[in-house]
Amino acid sequence: MSAFRNFIESYVRLPDEEWDVISGAFEPRVYKRNEIILQAGEICRFFGFLEKGLLRYYVEHDGNEVTKFFTIAPYCFTSAYSFRNQAPATESIQALENCVAYTISLKNADMLLELKHWAVFTRKFTQEVQYQTEQLMMEAKTTPATERYRLLLENYPGIVQRIPLKHLSGFLGIAPQSLSRIRKNYIRDLRK
Amino acid sequence: MSAFRNFIESYVRLPDEEWDVISGAFEPRVYKRNEIILQAGEICRFFGFLEKGLLRYYVEHDGNEVTKFFTIAPYCFTSAYSFRNQAPATESIQALENCVAYTISLKNADMLLELKHWAVFTRKFTQEVQYQTEQLMMEAKTTPATERYRLLLENYPGIVQRIPLKHLSGFLGIAPQSLSRIRKNYIRDLRK
Repeated sequence: MSAFRNFIESYVRLPDEEWDVISGAFEPRVYKRNEIILQAGEICRFFGFLEKGLLRYYVEHDGNEVTKFFTIAPYCFTSAYSFRNQAPATESIQALENCVAYTISLKNADMLLELKHWAVFTRKFTQEVQYQTEQLMMEAKTTPATERYRLLLENYPGIVQRIPLKHLSGFLGIAPQSLSRIRKNYIRDLRK
Repeated sequence: MSAFRNFIESYVRLPDEEWDVISGAFEPRVYKRNEIILQAGEICRFFGFLEKGLLRYYVEHDGNEVTKFFTIAPYCFTSAYSFRNQAPATESIQALENCVAYTISLKNADMLLELKHWAVFTRKFTQEVQYQTEQLMMEAKTTPATERYRLLLENYPGIVQRIPLKHLSGFLGIAPQSLSRIRKNYIRDLRK
């Protein structure tokens, strides 16, 4: 569980007393590859830290799954609106690999907010997610898929081998065939 | 300034003692129609509450302005990443109308975080903005422009009259001519 402490400490220094409370409040979870850990329409009962593995968020639209984003360990995960409001989720979350995680219920998460440094961590983390979402939104508006694929490779080396082509193309908002072509051209250009 | 208190209280009950500190920490500002209140490349020095008026966020891309979103009073505004990190902003903010606002510096905003209810407000507000950004991102991915225009009219009645066509079409990610056509069809359908 030390990866979780390291993750929090990349945002804020954490006194041992707080870590003792936090680590006691989270429960270990394992998810099997391809398991749906949250189904749209259900209420999200967890805020979690993903120690190992990879998650995919998606929505159903016109009979298709549209991938929103991925969580790559080490990182935190939840379906924020559903969790905060204990309302039915509009998105589903799927484990794309066997995963190891630690999760907490809303009631316990709210109690942790009494901890000063944990509260700072959650504030900074939410701000970071907000910023990343804004970036994704603007990239989709201004940057061609070829360039967004290149950015993904640069920012998350190795990730492309872990995500099935269909989910990656859905995330980039292009047809799988287009992504195959972009991939081939990218590899060809690298070899030049 | 009571609109600001009402706004905060729509997220959390605020004791008078906290409101006294908050209202004393914010400074009144007026922005003229078309004024650029933050230029990309500058550091955002304010977190603000917009009491009256309308703001537009945009980025320059290939010589064009791409509109990210709007802030419609009453609501809070800042360029979050730039403000939090006192780093150059990647976006500009423009007043589309004469505006009345109250703003605070990062130093004073950080001091306010010591106030328990204010801290709850900022957490809930950031979560809300995060959720809205996610919704915008997914709408752009899954919803045709005609439908997104309809949603905008439904969620913000009257706003379409306040935003110039070119900014609205940039926000919806379509050509101004396409938006003109969508508008005409929409009005025609209403009359049926």
